[in-house]
Amino acid sequence: MSLIVVGSMAFDAIETPFGKSDKIIGGAGTYIAWCASNFTPVKQISVVGGDFPQEELDALTARNVNLEGVQIKKDEKTFFWSGRYHMDMNTRDTLDTQLNVLENFTPVVPESFQGAEFLMLGNLVPSVQRSVIEQLKVRPKLIVMDTMNFWMEIALEELLKTISLVDVLLVNDSEARQLSGEYSLVKAAAKIREMGPKYVIIKKGEHGALLFYEDKIFVAPALPLEEVFDPTGAGDTFAGGFIAHLAKTNDISFDNMKRAIILGSAMASFCVEKFGTQRLREITKEDISDRMNQFVELASFDVQVGG
Amino acid sequence: MSLIVVGSMAFDAIETPFGKSDKIIGGAGTYIAWCASNFTPVKQISVVGGDFPQEELDALTARNVNLEGVQIKKDEKTFFWSGRYHMDMNTRDTLDTQLNVLENFTPVVPESFQGAEFLMLGNLVPSVQRSVIEQLKVRPKLIVMDTMNFWMEIALEELLKTISLVDVLLVNDSEARQLSGEYSLVKAAAKIREMGPKYVIIKKGEHGALLFYEDKIFVAPALPLEEVFDPTGAGDTFAGGFIAHLAKTNDISFDNMKRAIILGSAMASFCVEKFGTQRLREITKEDISDRMNQFVELASFDVQVGG
Repeated sequence: MSLIVVGSMAFDAIETPFGKSDKIIGGAGTYIAWCASNFTPVKQISVVGGDFPQEELDALTARNVNLEGVQIKKDEKTFFWSGRYHMDMNTRDTLDTQLNVLENFTPVVPESFQGAEFLMLGNLVPSVQRSVIEQLKVRPKLIVMDTMNFWMEIALEELLKTISLVDVLLVNDSEARQLSGEYSLVKAAAKIREMGPKYVIIKKGEHGALLFYEDKIFVAPALPLEEVFDPTGAGDTFAGGFIAHLAKTNDISFDNMKRAIILGSAMASFCVEKFGTQRLREITKEDISDRMNQFVELASFDVQVGG
Repeated sequence: MSLIVVGSMAFDAIETPFGKSDKIIGGAGTYIAWCASNFTPVKQISVVGGDFPQEELDALTARNVNLEGVQIKKDEKTFFWSGRYHMDMNTRDTLDTQLNVLENFTPVVPESFQGAEFLMLGNLVPSVQRSVIEQLKVRPKLIVMDTMNFWMEIALEELLKTISLVDVLLVNDSEARQLSGEYSLVKAAAKIREMGPKYVIIKKGEHGALLFYEDKIFVAPALPLEEVFDPTGAGDTFAGGFIAHLAKTNDISFDNMKRAIILGSAMASFCVEKFGTQRLREITKEDISDRMNQFVELASFDVQVGG
């Protein structure tokens, strides 16, 4: 089924305890597209400046990412973010943010994108995310939204309006606590579900992810890694794998959402192995299938308690 | 198969964000015994003072906990610990520690305990744990050891000596990092396995547990809880469920260790629902079996990726 992805395409400069990247390609929309295009075609909505490399756009097109919805502002500069990760790789300091083209981004949904059944709203200004929902003449079968603490702090009202319109909200554990005011993640998810989304996914990085729906909970494992080289984009990649699996299979049952979360987790486990999107560009279908089998092995058990 | 449990029996006074307990029964050995005795008889090794209530000893005896190895020092006082948990329930401050009878505890293994196939060393002075191993005329089939950061700080050399003698080491994530000097838990487990134990279990509280053996990893979920009322004893209870399942089934295969971890996790999820050992005293076989099924539902998925 048809999938629209909305999200930033950017330049990043990243420092981790293991090294420092040059100015490389980043952005939530970029990670989602690189990940999702392994499984299903993508209709991309974003904005870049004249400095964004044509070969990057060509590489995405070659992977069946339709860029008709990507505005190129020739005389402006692409969004830039620079950050430094701490030793735990879960916390980071932003060193520099230059909004550039993102400052006045007004997404326009191309006519050819209308009728898409799946919509992935990558982390972005909540009002911009909402404007895409509002431009769609037929509501998609499933709208998934990613967001972050930043919007809770500076645009809570706008954020809540957008959250009220989506089916699935993705947040990390500290964001779930911040948004709900509840420490227990079970209570936090219940409160967030009262805000609109039927499904809440709480990402816990190295501790996996939780999916909440009605009275059901799914606890997804993360792959224990020897090294997390660069966590940038792991959450976006997770989102890309999640929605791509649902769009590809056109099945939004709870059981299929579990599979989608495992695929998202598997893809995220690749993402962190190298700087930026590099690893996502290299992996093959065999790599993905091997990693999925690793997840099954990691987490499978039975409870025929003997004796 | 026969199971020996070594561990403190104590009084605790606990403060959590939800309330404050009186001076209640605690101690690693107590939690392990209350938990394990649901599944298999226990041969207990410990020490208490004259102030330890006879009804508590009688209650354990009634559950098939053999107290022949529990020394009662009539003129001394039982070990006392008092602590206050922070909001996250993962960190706590010790308010008071009175070693009392633990100060000069020299465990004596009763003749009738010889030949036991399973030995659970609850968290205790490492040299005391070791003295029990050394008193056993036949090495048990499996020795499981729990410990804590405190011993890494004040008795590292003794601790390493004991660790070198055991099959399974249980530690939490920060202890695994402290003991190994590695941040990555995969690397930490590998280093700890070089210290002696063939199996390393890393407990991550609300994030579940990891089992490492050779090149295999098992990621066990934790039950997402609305409320953790009192985390005291959760790790001991986990240990009790883990070794009791292995002892009951007399099967130390990797697959059965997985089951043992799930059972330990299920039992720990009961433990935290009330102060002290209270919840462990109430639960029935049906409660346990229901909880085990909840774990299966929580964590089960398949990856027949369709489309």
